[in-house]
Amino acid sequence: MIKVSLIGTGNVSYHLKEALTKAKNITLLDVHSSRDELFSKIVQKENQAKQPDIYIIAISDDAISTVSQQFENSKSLIVHTSGSVSISALPNGIRRGVFYPLQSFSKEREVDFQSVPICIEAEQKKDLELLKTLAKSISKSVYEITSLQRKSLHLAAVFINNFTNHMYQIGNELCDQNEVSFDILKPLIAETARKIESLSPFDTQTGPARRKDKKTIEVQLAQLKGVNHKEIYTILTNSILKTYEEKL
Amino acid sequence: MIKVSLIGTGNVSYHLKEALTKAKNITLLDVHSSRDELFSKIVQKENQAKQPDIYIIAISDDAISTVSQQFENSKSLIVHTSGSVSISALPNGIRRGVFYPLQSFSKEREVDFQSVPICIEAEQKKDLELLKTLAKSISKSVYEITSLQRKSLHLAAVFINNFTNHMYQIGNELCDQNEVSFDILKPLIAETARKIESLSPFDTQTGPARRKDKKTIEVQLAQLKGVNHKEIYTILTNSILKTYEEKL
Repeated sequence: MIKVSLIGTGNVSYHLKEALTKAKNITLLDVHSSRDELFSKIVQKENQAKQPDIYIIAISDDAISTVSQQFENSKSLIVHTSGSVSISALPNGIRRGVFYPLQSFSKEREVDFQSVPICIEAEQKKDLELLKTLAKSISKSVYEITSLQRKSLHLAAVFINNFTNHMYQIGNELCDQNEVSFDILKPLIAETARKIESLSPFDTQTGPARRKDKKTIEVQLAQLKGVNHKEIYTILTNSILKTYEEKL
Repeated sequence: MIKVSLIGTGNVSYHLKEALTKAKNITLLDVHSSRDELFSKIVQKENQAKQPDIYIIAISDDAISTVSQQFENSKSLIVHTSGSVSISALPNGIRRGVFYPLQSFSKEREVDFQSVPICIEAEQKKDLELLKTLAKSISKSVYEITSLQRKSLHLAAVFINNFTNHMYQIGNELCDQNEVSFDILKPLIAETARKIESLSPFDTQTGPARRKDKKTIEVQLAQLKGVNHKEIYTILTNSILKTYEEKL
Protein backbone atom coordinates (compact mmCIF):
# COMPACT_ATOMS: atom_id res chain seq x y z
CA MET A 1 0.00 0.00 0.00
CA ILE A 2 1.28 3.43 -0.94
CA LYS A 3 -0.08 6.16 1.32
CA VAL A 4 -0.74 9.39 -0.57
CA SER A 5 -1.72 12.85 0.55
CA LEU A 6 -2.99 15.28 -2.06
CA ILE A 7 -2.58 19.07 -1.85
CA GLY A 8 -4.68 21.31 -4.08
CA THR A 9 -8.31 21.67 -5.12
CA GLY A 10 -8.01 22.42 -8.87
CA ASN A 11 -8.78 20.31 -11.93
CA VAL A 12 -5.73 18.06 -11.73
CA SER A 13 -6.29 17.34 -8.05
CA TYR A 14 -9.98 16.65 -8.71
CA HIS A 15 -9.27 13.98 -11.31
CA LEU A 16 -6.24 12.57 -9.47
CA LYS A 17 -8.42 12.09 -6.42
CA GLU A 18 -10.91 10.06 -8.48
CA ALA A 19 -8.16 7.89 -9.96
CA LEU A 20 -6.24 7.37 -6.71
CA THR A 21 -9.40 6.44 -4.84
CA LYS A 22 -10.16 3.69 -7.35
CA ALA A 23 -6.60 2.28 -7.43
CA LYS A 24 -6.13 -0.95 -5.50
CA ASN A 25 -2.69 -0.51 -3.96
CA ILE A 26 -3.11 3.10 -2.89
CA THR A 27 -4.53 4.69 0.22
CA LEU A 28 -5.48 8.28 -0.30
CA LEU A 29 -5.12 9.71 3.21
CA ASP A 30 -6.47 13.20 2.61
CA VAL A 31 -6.96 16.05 0.14
CA HIS A 32 -6.19 19.56 1.29
CA SER A 33 -6.24 23.03 -0.09
CA SER A 34 -2.77 24.59 0.05
CA ARG A 35 -4.39 27.39 2.06
CA ASP A 36 -5.81 24.98 4.63
CA GLU A 37 -4.85 25.66 8.20
CA LEU A 38 -5.37 21.96 8.79
CA PHE A 39 -2.85 21.23 6.06
CA SER A 40 -0.10 23.17 7.81
CA LYS A 41 -0.80 21.29 11.03
CA ILE A 42 -0.65 17.96 9.24
CA VAL A 43 2.70 18.81 7.73
CA GLN A 44 4.07 19.69 11.17
CA LYS A 45 2.74 16.53 12.76
CA GLU A 46 3.72 14.13 10.04
CA ASN A 47 5.97 11.98 12.22
CA GLN A 48 2.90 10.20 13.42
CA ALA A 49 1.50 6.91 12.22
CA LYS A 50 -0.36 8.37 9.28
CA GLN A 51 2.63 9.87 7.53
CA PRO A 52 2.11 9.60 3.77
CA ASP A 53 4.71 7.98 1.53
CA ILE A 54 4.09 10.66 -1.07
CA TYR A 55 2.69 14.18 -1.00
CA ILE A 56 1.34 15.21 -4.40
CA ILE A 57 1.24 18.99 -4.74
CA ALA A 58 -1.27 19.70 -7.52
CA ILE A 59 -1.45 23.47 -7.42
CA SER A 60 -0.78 26.38 -9.78
CA ASP A 61 2.78 26.77 -11.09
CA ASP A 62 3.38 30.05 -9.31
CA ALA A 63 2.50 28.64 -5.88
CA ILE A 64 4.66 25.49 -6.00
CA SER A 65 7.85 27.07 -4.70
CA THR A 66 6.18 28.83 -1.75
CA VAL A 67 3.83 26.06 -0.67
CA SER A 68 6.52 23.39 -0.89
CA GLN A 69 8.63 25.27 1.70
CA GLN A 70 6.41 23.70 4.34
CA PHE A 71 7.91 20.32 3.46
CA GLU A 72 11.54 21.22 4.03
CA ASN A 73 11.80 18.88 7.01
CA SER A 74 9.61 16.16 5.58
CA LYS A 75 10.74 12.54 5.28
CA SER A 76 8.11 11.80 2.62
CA LEU A 77 8.57 12.03 -1.12
CA ILE A 78 7.29 15.42 -2.32
CA VAL A 79 6.19 15.75 -5.96
CA HIS A 80 4.52 18.46 -7.99
CA THR A 81 2.32 17.89 -11.06
CA SER A 82 3.40 20.76 -13.32
CA GLY A 83 4.59 20.47 -16.91
CA SER A 84 6.70 23.57 -16.91
CA VAL A 85 8.16 23.86 -13.38
CA SER A 86 11.55 22.27 -12.72
CA ILE A 87 12.08 19.68 -10.01
CA SER A 88 14.45 22.19 -8.38
CA ALA A 89 11.56 24.49 -7.48
CA LEU A 90 10.96 22.08 -4.59
CA PRO A 91 13.14 22.58 -1.45
CA ASN A 92 16.74 21.42 -1.63
CA GLY A 93 17.72 18.44 0.49
CA ILE A 94 14.32 16.72 0.62
CA ARG A 95 13.18 13.69 -1.40
CA ARG A 96 11.63 15.43 -4.37
CA GLY A 97 10.11 14.51 -7.71
CA VAL A 98 7.59 15.27 -10.43
CA PHE A 99 4.37 13.47 -11.30
CA TYR A 100 3.03 15.17 -14.46
CA PRO A 101 -0.14 13.82 -16.06
CA LEU A 102 -0.12 15.16 -19.63
CA GLN A 103 -3.74 15.79 -20.45
CA SER A 104 -6.17 18.70 -20.57
CA PHE A 105 -8.33 18.52 -17.46
CA SER A 106 -11.61 20.23 -16.66
CA LYS A 107 -14.09 19.35 -13.95
CA GLU A 108 -16.94 19.07 -16.47
CA ARG A 109 -15.32 16.25 -18.44
CA GLU A 110 -14.67 12.73 -17.27
CA VAL A 111 -11.12 11.47 -17.63
CA ASP A 112 -10.04 7.90 -18.22
CA PHE A 113 -6.81 8.11 -16.29
CA GLN A 114 -5.69 4.72 -17.65
CA SER A 115 -4.96 6.43 -20.97
CA VAL A 116 -3.37 9.59 -19.55
CA PRO A 117 0.43 9.57 -20.01
CA ILE A 118 2.20 10.26 -16.71
CA CYS A 119 5.69 11.73 -16.87
CA ILE A 120 7.73 11.02 -13.76
CA GLU A 121 11.03 12.30 -12.46
CA ALA A 122 12.96 11.83 -9.19
CA GLU A 123 16.51 12.30 -7.96
CA GLN A 124 16.88 8.98 -6.20
CA LYS A 125 16.39 5.58 -7.71
CA LYS A 126 14.08 4.26 -4.96
CA ASP A 127 11.90 7.38 -5.29
CA LEU A 128 11.66 6.86 -9.03
CA GLU A 129 10.59 3.26 -8.40
CA LEU A 130 7.98 4.43 -5.90
CA LEU A 131 6.62 7.00 -8.38
CA LYS A 132 6.58 4.38 -11.11
CA THR A 133 4.52 2.04 -8.95
CA LEU A 134 2.15 4.89 -8.10
CA ALA A 135 1.82 5.97 -11.76
CA LYS A 136 1.31 2.43 -13.04
CA SER A 137 -1.47 1.85 -10.56
CA ILE A 138 -3.58 4.52 -12.29
CA SER A 139 -2.26 4.68 -15.89
CA LYS A 140 -1.07 2.39 -18.66
CA SER A 141 1.41 5.01 -19.99
CA VAL A 142 4.26 5.96 -17.71
CA TYR A 143 7.37 7.77 -18.94
CA GLU A 144 10.59 8.70 -17.11
CA ILE A 145 11.69 12.08 -18.42
CA THR A 146 13.95 14.91 -17.29
CA SER A 147 12.81 18.42 -16.30
CA LEU A 148 14.17 19.74 -19.60
CA GLN A 149 12.29 17.16 -21.64
CA ARG A 150 9.11 17.82 -19.66
CA LYS A 151 9.42 21.53 -20.34
CA SER A 152 9.70 20.87 -24.08
CA LEU A 153 6.72 18.51 -23.98
CA HIS A 154 4.71 21.21 -22.26
CA LEU A 155 5.68 23.65 -24.98
CA ALA A 156 4.80 21.12 -27.72
CA ALA A 157 1.42 20.76 -25.97
CA VAL A 158 0.82 24.49 -26.47
CA PHE A 159 1.05 23.90 -30.22
CA ILE A 160 -0.93 20.65 -30.45
CA ASN A 161 -3.60 21.69 -27.94
CA ASN A 162 -3.88 25.47 -27.44
CA PHE A 163 -2.95 26.55 -30.96
CA THR A 164 -4.91 23.71 -32.58
CA ASN A 165 -7.95 24.83 -30.63
CA HIS A 166 -7.39 28.33 -31.98
CA MET A 167 -7.42 26.89 -35.53
CA TYR A 168 -10.86 25.46 -34.66
CA GLN A 169 -11.85 28.90 -33.39
CA ILE A 170 -10.84 30.59 -36.68
CA GLY A 171 -12.67 27.87 -38.63
CA ASN A 172 -15.73 28.65 -36.54
CA GLU A 173 -15.37 32.39 -37.22
CA LEU A 174 -15.19 31.76 -40.98
CA CYS A 175 -18.34 29.63 -40.79
CA ASP A 176 -20.16 32.32 -38.80
CA GLN A 177 -19.17 35.01 -41.30
CA ASN A 178 -20.79 33.00 -44.09
CA GLU A 179 -23.69 31.55 -42.11
CA VAL A 180 -22.76 27.91 -42.49
CA SER A 181 -22.89 25.46 -39.61
CA PHE A 182 -19.58 24.69 -37.93
CA ASP A 183 -21.00 21.18 -37.35
CA ILE A 184 -20.23 20.34 -40.99
CA LEU A 185 -16.52 20.51 -40.12
CA LYS A 186 -16.63 18.29 -37.03
CA PRO A 187 -16.07 14.94 -38.77
CA LEU A 188 -13.00 16.44 -40.46
CA ILE A 189 -11.67 17.64 -37.09
CA ALA A 190 -12.08 14.11 -35.73
CA GLU A 191 -10.41 12.48 -38.74
CA THR A 192 -7.47 14.94 -38.68
CA ALA A 193 -6.72 13.92 -35.10
CA ARG A 194 -7.39 10.20 -35.68
CA LYS A 195 -4.86 9.97 -38.52
CA ILE A 196 -2.08 10.93 -36.11
CA GLU A 197 -2.64 7.78 -34.08
CA SER A 198 -0.99 5.70 -36.79
CA LEU A 199 0.77 8.12 -39.16
CA SER A 200 3.34 10.89 -38.68
CA PRO A 201 2.16 14.50 -39.15
CA PHE A 202 4.84 14.86 -41.82
CA ASP A 203 3.09 12.18 -43.88
CA THR A 204 -0.50 13.28 -43.23
CA GLN A 205 -0.03 16.90 -44.37
CA THR A 206 -2.35 17.87 -47.23
CA GLY A 207 -3.74 21.13 -48.63
CA PRO A 208 -2.70 23.92 -51.00
CA ALA A 209 0.63 24.65 -49.27
CA ARG A 210 1.60 20.97 -49.30
CA ARG A 211 0.78 20.79 -53.03
CA LYS A 212 2.62 24.09 -53.67
CA ASP A 213 -0.66 25.24 -55.25
CA LYS A 214 0.09 28.98 -55.42
CA LYS A 215 -3.08 29.76 -57.34
CA THR A 216 -5.37 28.42 -54.60
CA ILE A 217 -3.23 30.08 -51.93
CA GLU A 218 -3.75 33.47 -53.62
CA VAL A 219 -7.49 32.94 -54.03
CA GLN A 220 -7.88 31.91 -50.37
CA LEU A 221 -5.82 34.84 -49.11
CA ALA A 222 -8.07 37.23 -51.04
CA GLN A 223 -11.09 35.49 -49.54
CA LEU A 224 -10.01 36.15 -45.94
CA LYS A 225 -11.42 39.34 -44.48
CA GLY A 226 -9.55 40.14 -41.25
CA VAL A 227 -5.89 41.21 -41.22
CA ASN A 228 -5.42 38.71 -38.42
CA HIS A 229 -6.67 35.73 -40.43
CA LYS A 230 -4.63 36.78 -43.48
CA GLU A 231 -1.46 37.02 -41.41
CA ILE A 232 -1.97 33.60 -39.81
CA TYR A 233 -2.78 32.03 -43.18
CA THR A 234 0.38 33.49 -44.71
CA ILE A 235 2.74 32.50 -41.95
CA LEU A 236 1.46 28.93 -41.66
CA THR A 237 1.39 28.47 -45.42
CA ASN A 238 5.03 29.62 -45.64
CA SER A 239 5.97 27.34 -42.78
CA ILE A 240 4.41 24.32 -44.54
CA LEU A 241 6.12 25.29 -47.82
CA LYS A 242 9.42 25.46 -45.95
CA THR A 243 8.84 22.09 -44.27
CA TYR A 244 8.46 20.34 -47.63
CA GLU A 245 11.00 22.37 -49.58
CA GLU A 246 13.02 20.16 -51.86
CA LYS A 247 16.63 20.55 -50.86
CA LEU A 248 18.71 21.37 -53.94
CA MET B 1 -33.22 3.50 -58.67
CA ILE B 2 -30.84 6.37 -59.38
CA LYS B 3 -28.39 5.57 -62.17
CA VAL B 4 -24.97 7.10 -61.56
CA SER B 5 -21.87 7.35 -63.67
CA LEU B 6 -18.63 8.32 -61.97
CA ILE B 7 -15.78 10.17 -63.71
CA GLY B 8 -12.34 10.24 -62.10
CA THR B 9 -9.90 7.81 -60.52
CA GLY B 10 -8.60 9.78 -57.53
CA ASN B 11 -9.25 9.41 -53.79
CA VAL B 12 -12.76 10.90 -53.77
CA SER B 13 -13.86 8.73 -56.69
CA TYR B 14 -12.33 5.66 -55.03
CA HIS B 15 -14.33 6.09 -51.82
CA LEU B 16 -17.49 7.29 -53.58
CA LYS B 17 -17.41 4.13 -55.67
CA GLU B 18 -17.32 2.00 -52.51
CA ALA B 19 -20.21 3.92 -50.95
CA LEU B 20 -22.38 4.03 -54.10
CA THR B 21 -21.89 0.34 -54.75
CA LYS B 22 -23.19 -0.50 -51.27
CA ALA B 23 -26.20 1.87 -51.42
CA LYS B 24 -29.53 0.14 -52.02
CA ASN B 25 -31.33 2.58 -54.31
CA ILE B 26 -28.38 3.36 -56.57
CA THR B 27 -27.03 1.67 -59.67
CA LEU B 28 -23.46 2.62 -60.37
CA LEU B 29 -23.25 2.22 -64.14
CA ASP B 30 -19.55 2.80 -64.63
CA VAL B 31 -16.41 4.52 -63.41
CA HIS B 32 -14.18 6.22 -65.95
CA SER B 33 -11.00 8.16 -66.03
CA SER B 34 -11.57 11.62 -67.49
CA ARG B 35 -8.84 10.72 -70.01
CA ASP B 36 -10.65 7.56 -71.08
CA GLU B 37 -11.38 7.27 -74.78
CA LEU B 38 -14.26 5.04 -73.77
CA PHE B 39 -15.60 7.84 -71.58
CA SER B 40 -15.84 10.27 -74.50
CA LYS B 41 -17.72 7.67 -76.52
CA ILE B 42 -20.15 7.04 -73.69
CA VAL B 43 -20.87 10.73 -73.35
CA GLN B 44 -21.59 10.93 -77.08
CA LYS B 45 -23.85 7.90 -77.03
CA GLU B 46 -25.74 8.74 -73.87
CA ASN B 47 -29.15 8.88 -75.53
CA GLN B 48 -29.31 5.15 -75.28
CA ALA B 49 -30.99 3.04 -72.62
CA LYS B 50 -28.18 3.27 -70.13
CA GLN B 51 -28.16 7.05 -69.79
CA PRO B 52 -27.26 7.91 -66.18
CA ASP B 53 -29.46 10.20 -64.08
CA ILE B 54 -26.36 11.80 -62.65
CA TYR B 55 -22.76 12.12 -63.75
CA ILE B 56 -20.45 12.74 -60.79
CA ILE B 57 -17.20 14.38 -61.92
CA ALA B 58 -14.70 13.67 -59.15
CA ILE B 59 -11.53 15.08 -60.65
CA SER B 60 -8.95 17.74 -59.78
CA ASP B 61 -10.20 21.35 -59.52
CA ASP B 62 -8.22 22.54 -62.52
CA ALA B 63 -9.68 19.93 -64.87
CA ILE B 64 -13.39 20.42 -64.02
CA SER B 65 -14.05 23.22 -66.49
CA THR B 66 -12.40 21.47 -69.45
CA VAL B 67 -13.68 17.95 -68.83
CA SER B 68 -17.24 19.12 -68.21
CA GLN B 69 -17.37 20.68 -71.70
CA GLN B 70 -18.05 17.19 -73.00
CA PHE B 71 -21.43 17.33 -71.24
CA GLU B 72 -22.71 20.48 -72.90
CA ASN B 73 -25.43 18.57 -74.74
CA SER B 74 -26.21 16.16 -71.93
CA LYS B 75 -29.71 15.67 -70.50
CA SER B 76 -28.35 14.21 -67.27
CA LEU B 77 -27.59 16.11 -64.09
CA ILE B 78 -23.85 16.92 -64.03
CA VAL B 79 -22.19 17.54 -60.65
CA HIS B 80 -18.63 18.08 -59.52
CA THR B 81 -17.26 17.20 -56.07
CA SER B 82 -14.97 20.14 -55.35
CA GLY B 83 -15.01 22.35 -52.27
CA SER B 84 -13.59 25.42 -53.92
CA VAL B 85 -14.90 25.39 -57.51
CA SER B 86 -18.13 27.27 -58.23
CA ILE B 87 -21.15 25.58 -59.79
CA SER B 88 -20.69 27.97 -62.73
CA ALA B 89 -17.47 26.23 -63.79
CA LEU B 90 -19.80 23.63 -65.35
CA PRO B 91 -21.22 24.44 -68.82
CA ASN B 92 -24.01 26.98 -69.00
CA GLY B 93 -27.46 25.73 -69.95
CA ILE B 94 -27.12 22.17 -68.69
CA ARG B 95 -28.57 20.69 -65.49
CA ARG B 96 -25.65 21.29 -63.15
CA GLY B 97 -24.88 20.90 -59.47
CA VAL B 98 -22.33 20.18 -56.76
CA PHE B 99 -21.90 17.10 -54.58
CA TYR B 100 -19.10 17.91 -52.13
CA PRO B 101 -18.18 15.34 -49.47
CA LEU B 102 -16.31 17.26 -46.78
CA GLN B 103 -13.70 14.85 -45.50
CA SER B 104 -10.01 14.14 -45.97
CA PHE B 105 -9.71 11.10 -48.23
CA SER B 106 -6.77 8.84 -48.89
CA LYS B 107 -6.79 5.39 -50.44
CA GLU B 108 -4.95 3.89 -47.47
CA ARG B 109 -7.67 4.78 -44.95
CA GLU B 110 -11.18 3.39 -44.83
CA VAL B 111 -13.99 5.91 -44.78
CA ASP B 112 -17.36 5.49 -43.11
CA PHE B 113 -19.33 7.51 -45.64
CA GLN B 114 -22.40 7.51 -43.38
CA SER B 115 -20.64 10.09 -41.20
CA VAL B 116 -19.20 12.21 -44.02
CA PRO B 117 -21.12 15.50 -44.43
CA ILE B 118 -22.21 15.98 -48.04
CA CYS B 119 -22.81 19.56 -49.20
CA ILE B 120 -25.13 19.75 -52.18
CA GLU B 121 -26.11 22.53 -54.55
CA ALA B 122 -28.23 22.66 -57.73
CA GLU B 123 -29.99 25.33 -59.77
CA GLN B 124 -33.31 23.56 -60.17
CA LYS B 125 -35.52 22.27 -57.40
CA LYS B 126 -36.00 18.77 -58.87
CA ASP B 127 -32.22 18.43 -59.29
CA LEU B 128 -31.69 19.44 -55.69
CA GLU B 129 -34.22 16.78 -54.64
CA LEU B 130 -32.43 14.19 -56.76
CA LEU B 131 -29.06 15.11 -55.23
CA LYS B 132 -30.60 14.98 -51.76
CA THR B 133 -31.91 11.46 -52.37
CA LEU B 134 -28.52 10.42 -53.70
CA ALA B 135 -26.64 12.00 -50.77
CA LYS B 136 -28.98 10.55 -48.14
CA SER B 137 -28.55 7.08 -49.54
CA ILE B 138 -24.87 7.12 -48.56
CA SER B 139 -24.63 9.65 -45.68
CA LYS B 140 -26.52 10.69 -42.55
CA SER B 141 -25.37 14.35 -42.90
CA VAL B 142 -26.59 16.25 -45.94
CA TYR B 143 -26.47 20.05 -46.20
CA GLU B 144 -27.79 22.37 -48.89
CA ILE B 145 -25.32 25.22 -49.26
CA THR B 146 -24.41 27.84 -51.85
CA SER B 147 -21.15 28.03 -53.83
CA LEU B 148 -20.06 30.94 -51.66
CA GLN B 149 -20.75 29.07 -48.44
CA ARG B 150 -18.98 26.01 -49.79
CA LYS B 151 -15.93 28.08 -50.65
CA SER B 152 -15.79 29.45 -47.11
CA LEU B 153 -16.20 25.95 -45.64
CA HIS B 154 -13.31 24.81 -47.77
CA LEU B 155 -11.20 27.67 -46.46
CA ALA B 156 -12.22 26.90 -42.87
CA ALA B 157 -11.12 23.32 -43.56
CA VAL B 158 -7.63 24.58 -44.38
CA PHE B 159 -7.42 25.94 -40.85
CA ILE B 160 -8.98 23.02 -38.97
CA ASN B 161 -7.28 20.32 -41.04
CA ASN B 162 -4.13 21.50 -42.87
CA PHE B 163 -2.98 24.06 -40.30
CA THR B 164 -3.91 21.86 -37.36
CA ASN B 165 -1.82 19.10 -38.88
CA HIS B 166 1.05 21.56 -39.11
CA MET B 167 0.66 22.26 -35.37
CA TYR B 168 1.10 18.50 -34.84
CA GLN B 169 4.19 18.68 -37.06
CA ILE B 170 5.74 21.47 -34.97
CA GLY B 171 4.91 19.55 -31.79
CA ASN B 172 6.70 16.57 -33.29
CA GLU B 173 9.75 18.71 -34.19
CA LEU B 174 9.95 20.02 -30.60
CA CYS B 175 9.81 16.46 -29.27
CA ASP B 176 12.55 15.34 -31.66
CA GLN B 177 14.78 18.25 -30.66
CA ASN B 178 14.59 17.12 -27.03
CA GLU B 179 14.49 13.38 -27.62
CA VAL B 180 11.09 12.74 -26.10
CA SER B 181 8.53 10.50 -27.74
CA PHE B 182 5.78 12.25 -29.69
CA ASP B 183 3.53 9.38 -28.58
CA ILE B 184 3.22 11.04 -25.15
CA LEU B 185 1.21 13.82 -26.81
CA LYS B 186 -1.23 11.62 -28.72
CA PRO B 187 -3.90 11.30 -26.02
CA LEU B 188 -3.91 15.12 -25.74
CA ILE B 189 -4.36 15.45 -29.52
CA ALA B 190 -7.33 13.09 -29.32
CA GLU B 191 -8.90 14.90 -26.35
CA THR B 192 -8.43 18.34 -27.97
CA ALA B 193 -10.45 17.16 -30.98
CA ARG B 194 -13.03 15.26 -28.90
CA LYS B 195 -13.91 18.32 -26.82
CA ILE B 196 -15.12 20.11 -29.96
CA GLU B 197 -17.87 17.52 -30.46
CA SER B 198 -19.84 19.03 -27.60
CA LEU B 199 -18.27 22.40 -26.77
CA SER B 200 -17.46 25.50 -28.81
CA PRO B 201 -13.77 26.25 -29.49
CA PHE B 202 -14.30 29.61 -27.81
CA ASP B 203 -15.12 27.81 -24.56
CA THR B 204 -12.46 25.10 -24.78
CA GLN B 205 -9.50 27.45 -25.24
CA THR B 206 -6.86 27.04 -22.54
CA GLY B 207 -3.13 27.81 -22.19
CA PRO B 208 -0.86 30.75 -21.36
CA ALA B 209 -2.40 33.15 -23.92
CA ARG B 210 -5.94 32.39 -22.71
CA ARG B 211 -4.83 33.06 -19.11
CA LYS B 212 -2.93 36.21 -20.20
CA ASP B 213 0.07 34.61 -18.50
CA LYS B 214 2.79 36.88 -19.92
CA LYS B 215 5.52 35.34 -17.79
CA THR B 216 5.02 31.83 -19.25
CA ILE B 217 4.69 33.30 -22.76
CA GLU B 218 8.11 34.94 -22.41
CA VAL B 219 9.71 31.81 -21.02
CA GLN B 220 8.28 29.67 -23.81
CA LEU B 221 9.34 32.11 -26.52
CA ALA B 222 12.89 32.02 -25.19
CA GLN B 223 12.72 28.23 -25.21
CA LEU B 224 11.90 28.02 -28.94
CA LYS B 225 14.95 27.65 -31.15
CA GLY B 226 13.94 28.32 -34.75
CA VAL B 227 12.90 31.77 -36.00
CA ASN B 228 9.97 30.05 -37.68
CA HIS B 229 8.61 28.51 -34.46
CA LYS B 230 9.06 31.79 -32.57
CA GLU B 231 7.15 33.71 -35.23
CA ILE B 232 4.23 31.24 -35.25
CA TYR B 233 4.11 31.17 -31.45
CA THR B 234 4.01 34.98 -31.32
CA ILE B 235 1.33 35.45 -33.94
CA LEU B 236 -0.99 32.76 -32.57
CA THR B 237 -0.50 33.94 -29.00
CA ASN B 238 -1.42 37.49 -30.03
CA SER B 239 -4.43 36.22 -31.93
CA ILE B 240 -5.71 34.32 -28.87
CA LEU B 241 -5.08 37.37 -26.66
CA LYS B 242 -7.12 39.46 -29.12
CA THR B 243 -9.93 36.91 -29.22
CA TYR B 244 -10.43 37.14 -25.45
CA GLU B 245 -9.65 40.82 -25.03
CA GLU B 246 -12.01 42.41 -22.56
CA LYS B 247 -13.82 45.17 -24.38
CA LEU B 248 -13.60 48.39 -22.38
